[in-house]
Amino acid sequence: MAPLGERSDDPVLPDPPQGPLHVARARASFPWKELALFWEGEDTLRFKKAIFSTLENDPLFAHPRGSRLSVEKYQELNFLRCKRVFEYDFLPVGDMLGSLPRVLALIECLGMYDWSLAAKFFLHVLTFGSAIYSSGSERHFKYLPKIFSLEIFGCFALTEVSHGSNTKAIRTTAHYDPSTQEFVIHSPDFEAAKFWVGNMGKTATHAVVYAQLYTPGGQCHGLHPFVVQIRDPKTLLPMPGVMVGDIGKKLGQNGLDNGFAMFHKVRIPRQDLLNRSGDVTPEGAYVTHVKNVGQRFSESLGSLSSGRVAIVGMSVVNLKLAVSIALRFSATRRQFGPTDKEEVPVLEYPMQQWRLLPYLAAAYALDHFSKSLFLDLGELQRGLLGKDRSVRQAELGQACGGHGYLAMNRLGDLRDDNDPNCTYEGDNNVLLQQTSSYLLGLLARRDQGGARIESPLKTVDFLDGYADILGRRFEGSSPEDLLDSSVPLAAYEWLVCYLLRESHQKLSQETRSGKSDFEARNDCQVYHCRPLALAFLELTVARRFHEHTHQPRVPPPLRAVLQRLSALYALWSLSQHTALLYRGKILPWTLVTELMNPELKDDAVALVDVIAPPDFILDSPIGRADGEACARRRPRVCSLLPGSAPPMGGCPCVSTETWHFRVKVTW
Amino acid sequence: MAPLGERSDDPVLPDPPQGPLHVARARASFPWKELALFWEGEDTLRFKKAIFSTLENDPLFAHPRGSRLSVEKYQELNFLRCKRVFEYDFLPVGDMLGSLPRVLALIECLGMYDWSLAAKFFLHVLTFGSAIYSSGSERHFKYLPKIFSLEIFGCFALTEVSHGSNTKAIRTTAHYDPSTQEFVIHSPDFEAAKFWVGNMGKTATHAVVYAQLYTPGGQCHGLHPFVVQIRDPKTLLPMPGVMVGDIGKKLGQNGLDNGFAMFHKVRIPRQDLLNRSGDVTPEGAYVTHVKNVGQRFSESLGSLSSGRVAIVGMSVVNLKLAVSIALRFSATRRQFGPTDKEEVPVLEYPMQQWRLLPYLAAAYALDHFSKSLFLDLGELQRGLLGKDRSVRQAELGQACGGHGYLAMNRLGDLRDDNDPNCTYEGDNNVLLQQTSSYLLGLLARRDQGGARIESPLKTVDFLDGYADILGRRFEGSSPEDLLDSSVPLAAYEWLVCYLLRESHQKLSQETRSGKSDFEARNDCQVYHCRPLALAFLELTVARRFHEHTHQPRVPPPLRAVLQRLSALYALWSLSQHTALLYRGKILPWTLVTELMNPELKDDAVALVDVIAPPDFILDSPIGRADGEACARRRPRVCSLLPGSAPPMGGCPCVSTETWHFRVKVTW
Repeated sequence: MAPLGERSDDPVLPDPPQGPLHVARARASFPWKELALFWEGEDTLRFKKAIFSTLENDPLFAHPRGSRLSVEKYQELNFLRCKRVFEYDFLPVGDMLGSLPRVLALIECLGMYDWSLAAKFFLHVLTFGSAIYSSGSERHFKYLPKIFSLEIFGCFALTEVSHGSNTKAIRTTAHYDPSTQEFVIHSPDFEAAKFWVGNMGKTATHAVVYAQLYTPGGQCHGLHPFVVQIRDPKTLLPMPGVMVGDIGKKLGQNGLDNGFAMFHKVRIPRQDLLNRSGDVTPEGAYVTHVKNVGQRFSESLGSLSSGRVAIVGMSVVNLKLAVSIALRFSATRRQFGPTDKEEVPVLEYPMQQWRLLPYLAAAYALDHFSKSLFLDLGELQRGLLGKDRSVRQAELGQACGGHGYLAMNRLGDLRDDNDPNCTYEGDNNVLLQQTSSYLLGLLARRDQGGARIESPLKTVDFLDGYADILGRRFEGSSPEDLLDSSVPLAAYEWLVCYLLRESHQKLSQETRSGKSDFEARNDCQVYHCRPLALAFLELTVARRFHEHTHQPRVPPPLRAVLQRLSALYALWSLSQHTALLYRGKILPWTLVTELMNPELKDDAVALVDVIAPPDFILDSPIGRADGEACARRRPRVCSLLPGSAPPMGGCPCVSTETWHFRVKVTW
Repeated sequence: MAPLGERSDDPVLPDPPQGPLHVARARASFPWKELALFWEGEDTLRFKKAIFSTLENDPLFAHPRGSRLSVEKYQELNFLRCKRVFEYDFLPVGDMLGSLPRVLALIECLGMYDWSLAAKFFLHVLTFGSAIYSSGSERHFKYLPKIFSLEIFGCFALTEVSHGSNTKAIRTTAHYDPSTQEFVIHSPDFEAAKFWVGNMGKTATHAVVYAQLYTPGGQCHGLHPFVVQIRDPKTLLPMPGVMVGDIGKKLGQNGLDNGFAMFHKVRIPRQDLLNRSGDVTPEGAYVTHVKNVGQRFSESLGSLSSGRVAIVGMSVVNLKLAVSIALRFSATRRQFGPTDKEEVPVLEYPMQQWRLLPYLAAAYALDHFSKSLFLDLGELQRGLLGKDRSVRQAELGQACGGHGYLAMNRLGDLRDDNDPNCTYEGDNNVLLQQTSSYLLGLLARRDQGGARIESPLKTVDFLDGYADILGRRFEGSSPEDLLDSSVPLAAYEWLVCYLLRESHQKLSQETRSGKSDFEARNDCQVYHCRPLALAFLELTVARRFHEHTHQPRVPPPLRAVLQRLSALYALWSLSQHTALLYRGKILPWTLVTELMNPELKDDAVALVDVIAPPDFILDSPIGRADGEACARRRPRVCSLLPGSAPPMGGCPCVSTETWHFRVKVTW
């Protein structure tokens, strides 16, 4: 493969623009273009560059950011952009299933530009489309070409006003009427209204609606998905019996039209039941290949898994944007210094490094985790529920001082748009409870003399060594040992086994004391099962990052920096559990105090160059690639002072080596 | 005093409205009206009620919230409201200095309504006004009546584009010209532009401008404040030589016009130097009673202290609003249950209690801390810098699941408006560094055989027992011991002494190794000085709350609940330091696991009633006092579904005992 950037007519990775950040960049210990190539692969790099350039060159995608528009204008613009993305056909339907890395790259590119756009696009194509594809059968494939031609526009309607996490309690009904061979979709009251449904507010013509299926005689067969037309595709007026509307302004992602709907005895053909897990004969008999009700329930909700994996990916993209902005700003912003005359960039302060560098390591670790999980899911279409809890854009914003609070620097939009990642697809404590229950189940089976503990993704295989791992001690570890992530990983395995044993003991004790299963499980969450689930997920992320950074195909010039990132991430993540590590007497204090790795400070700006999108997409004056805060290339707009006339003498462009706003004012 | 609520014509504390929350309220162990009276005092209760009622009855204060308007409309409306607040004259000037609790109550009332309004009002009256009063002398008192008559409108201009935290490096200059007896105010370049100044964007006519004072011959005497007219009060056009404008949209508080200004050789009379710490004679000689430059610098910035105390207060008000919303929602929102049929309010889950109850305790502890600190400052006009780092509205939002993300429920606005509390008046890490330096200085003086360690607020007096405290051990403490806050307080004192010793040793070691003072201090921050400062501040808050809740004048029916709150707060706060407590081998694990106090769960709704404002001010459908989500009293507006027509059958009002959105739909 020709080295990137050598074809001067169209380099995939152009050199960063000259500017104040040049000094910081020059101190990096590794060639950033080689890391970009290793991290993304040439195909993905070219694909992303093509998308970014297309958006930058199309006036429809010119800023201002949607959050500065009225909700109505923003939603209208967002729909037009979504339509345009379809027209560009970046990823033809035929290629989509065969090229998962490109699907992921498209999500990332659209999300980096604007999450409202990415959500609108993928809710239609992936969430709605794949619900039909994977929950239905051949009789439903007629919908697929209409999805890609935008003849119909879709949404996924599961959550109701009163029930989200507890999906079993969903109350919309679908009664089968054999006399007309139709289902009657009905919302018994307002609590059962579908709510929060993305694309439903103003634009969707069709919905996949989850409802309790009843056959004649009144037997309920549980939750099933149905295709329901909710609007006329020509006029966008609601169909008879459907009351549908927008739920109003949210904290973020206001370009997306989240909606509600109530159904008043809406009749749909029998064939529009998505019948993968169960079907009804024309006469009204229920037939299924899945005998167990619980299993049928899980299968009918299987399409949520891909959504949950996507949540990890979306959080990571926001983290990548936020660390790019915060680190570039910190490498150029000067404040205080050894003397009153000389000021140093704030990134030189150990305190600022401690606040930011772990998030840089986390951006890499979670980016790898999210991508590899997405690819696994693509193959397995089932599996682990994960959740990124390390994303804390708010803290990153604070590390930028006041300037982080200026709306145009985008940290606020990132936080607002990221928020739903913390609640949708279920409160994350509910998912954590499922994870700990799964682990406890494995232990129980092992104690009953069962087979080897293993899972398709191999995340739990280490539990086979449960007893040995509990005997591990690390008190002799030297600080040097800790510079490789294998030591913290071994400590993490101990931690998970320890918490598993404690949770098991606590649960048995609560049950023996006469508590019901429901009570006993609740009373074990805070100090036992929840930390267990978190530690297990953290271990899984850290292990994948360790394996990725230690594999033989890592180019030699990148090994040192990647292994430092891996060690920093594992130690930082582990440092949340120091009290337990002390309690178990397995770890020296140095584990935590050696966490900060000063060498990474000089690599930080180059590491950001690998994960940051072009300036047009990053769209943050304090995060510009050259380190200058004022946009030279937009001479008539002063990006520092929106709404103000350029000061006398022209735009306050930067004219010196310091980052900020220096101006050539000719009084 | 007559019991409150008995004068049925005008009860200060009316009964809460009937509704779904009634059940939860009835379980409280104490009379909430008695706690409200003890907590606020009757005068403050009546004062707050009068303000809230006035706002609710004036159409100018009708919602929608400003964050839903354009920035321009919001700023205009906010100025009109600010003017109206002046007209209401809630707190006549003469009363202001004599009634600090009323000043605090006014800040709280206006802030609970809208922080943009509170900021605009108090930046003019208190920040601008008191800078003139306390940094100037009689010759400046002519400005005071103009401030209260709104003849002039003021702002406080310290921060510049490139310098905020490092105030010494401020670069605006004031050269004295004896030939005309004027100062020449000048911004040498754009980095020296005043920036972020509240009220400066569109409305201020005058500014207190901080600039480096130069006398003829070129000697610089450091930073001094000057009164500079920046706009014509009639036309609001900028004065000659002043370039002034709005800095653009922020993440929150967009009703406030934050501005920038550059001065081009603007001439002001010699008398407009605020001359408390230094003056210039007509001939151009500098005179001062403060010989030490550093001390003069501190004195000239003394007015920042009251701002910093106000930050604590503002954060607490936001916390009070956020816990009110989150706890009322949690006491009525049902999800899952021991059987598929029966669902329980989410507040019944230990996990939800663990997420929310510590914040309820923190709201009380910090409310008391903030009020008592404000009163102390009023008397001392100097002192401790504090910062609330426990406010985490984001987490509270997440504990409300998806509904917390709906803009109308206000958690987003609270977070956005609270954000500046984390950065203004200086990055909080800088303030923490000052705090640890102060403590290390006390220890050094003690080691040199100095006098008793004591401070005006008595926050450091315990350090006299330094050696004894370091010998404390608590391993024999029983869980029952921990139900009183005196045990965690004693542990906190140990922690502060321990961190003080470690910080001192680390600093000595770094200095001995040849590092400069600047380097040595930086290298001790992360794991030594910063935790020291935080632990000291946390101890101070916990101690004040302990003393307040254990004093003899607490009415007997309130003692149990207040002492439980105090214990929960102290333990929760201390639980952040478990690793250190283990390291010091001074604490049993039970300290943490006994933290959750189930009894508080049943008192939570009543405790919220004491701190929550009326529904009109709280303005959050999921936080209503009756626990019903839809506003009965606004029949033509459906607050659940903004922008949608009421569904057939009328507004989806709540008609049953469950909280949510139940609707009488007549199909």
